[in-house]
Amino acid sequence: MGRPRTPLLDRERITTTALQLVDESGDFSVPQIARRLGVQTGSVYHHVDGRDGIVELLRERVASAIETATLDLEPWDTAVEAWARSYRAAFAAHPRAIPLLMTSPVRAPRVLDQYERAVTRLLDAGFEPAGIMALITALENLVLGSALDLAAPETMWELPDRAATPHLAAALAAAGDHRADRAFEVGLTALMKHARTLSGIHGS
Amino acid sequence: MGRPRTPLLDRERITTTALQLVDESGDFSVPQIARRLGVQTGSVYHHVDGRDGIVELLRERVASAIETATLDLEPWDTAVEAWARSYRAAFAAHPRAIPLLMTSPVRAPRVLDQYERAVTRLLDAGFEPAGIMALITALENLVLGSALDLAAPETMWELPDRAATPHLAAALAAAGDHRADRAFEVGLTALMKHARTLSGIHGS
Repeated sequence: MGRPRTPLLDRERITTTALQLVDESGDFSVPQIARRLGVQTGSVYHHVDGRDGIVELLRERVASAIETATLDLEPWDTAVEAWARSYRAAFAAHPRAIPLLMTSPVRAPRVLDQYERAVTRLLDAGFEPAGIMALITALENLVLGSALDLAAPETMWELPDRAATPHLAAALAAAGDHRADRAFEVGLTALMKHARTLSGIHGS
Repeated sequence: MGRPRTPLLDRERITTTALQLVDESGDFSVPQIARRLGVQTGSVYHHVDGRDGIVELLRERVASAIETATLDLEPWDTAVEAWARSYRAAFAAHPRAIPLLMTSPVRAPRVLDQYERAVTRLLDAGFEPAGIMALITALENLVLGSALDLAAPETMWELPDRAATPHLAAALAAAGDHRADRAFEVGLTALMKHARTLSGIHGS
């Protein structure tokens, strides 16, 4: 804001360093970034729009792995479903960034543009405008919860005494491999089915 | 394991201190807990089963706010839906604990008992055993994603240039208040509808 345009390389290095810190510890500070880059803290602030600006650079970096071309697929539900899968994969690569990015307001233009495309697809599909953000957010809550779950151990329930929880033991034994992927599929199927029933309600 | 049973008060104080640290920073260390309690790090280890043991104490503490009586409601879908709402409220009170607890295996007996009750309700309702954990996990991914979303700002999208994202701007303007609650309702409705279609498939 009002500052001279900074070289892309510096913002890239700041973003890369911030993401390393978040991947390691779930958070970052500007002095930590400066220390890793061997510069003064003030120099980092010279290149970015404060801590919040770095959060938005992180958001753009993580979201850049989402294949936005999915949003052009036909029909709309194929597009939304493919976008959700790609969204999950992008954030599963940086699970510790999820709480940080989920609890900061979205300002990054490239990310806002992605929402614009998703909203446009849903409007074109006949969704009531008032319900579109709730549907997208429900999908994101599932996607990001599932991305966190993908970072969890394959054996998520450790039963010290199977006799104490026999039905849980049986359900776990019957569940098979890839438990996180299976759970995501159940949730995604449910949300897409529900979304299809909502798509025709416009103007009613 | 093999250590003498410790006074409840000490474990309670360790848990309370660990939860304060997690609420503040998203993480805790045993030396940090010791410092806050004014004791040696070794003294803390004397009372708990290592760092993992403290994570399970945290899980029991956070999950103790879930109203498990919901799981006795009739019919089964009323029970599961009420459990999901209470689960979200309990974790929304400690959003920074969510990533930590979601990515550590569940060992706490009182929490395993809650899963046992949920699985039992679904088995009794006619669900195929192989799909029960995936359904519960899908519900948890939505619940915990939504609990994180509840910790996010009410204004989650800040548009610097409304003309650049006109459909997003219109969808946000139409969305109304309580955006996080509305999104959770959409997701929960979708999952419960899907669950009801699955409940009759047993043995097919």
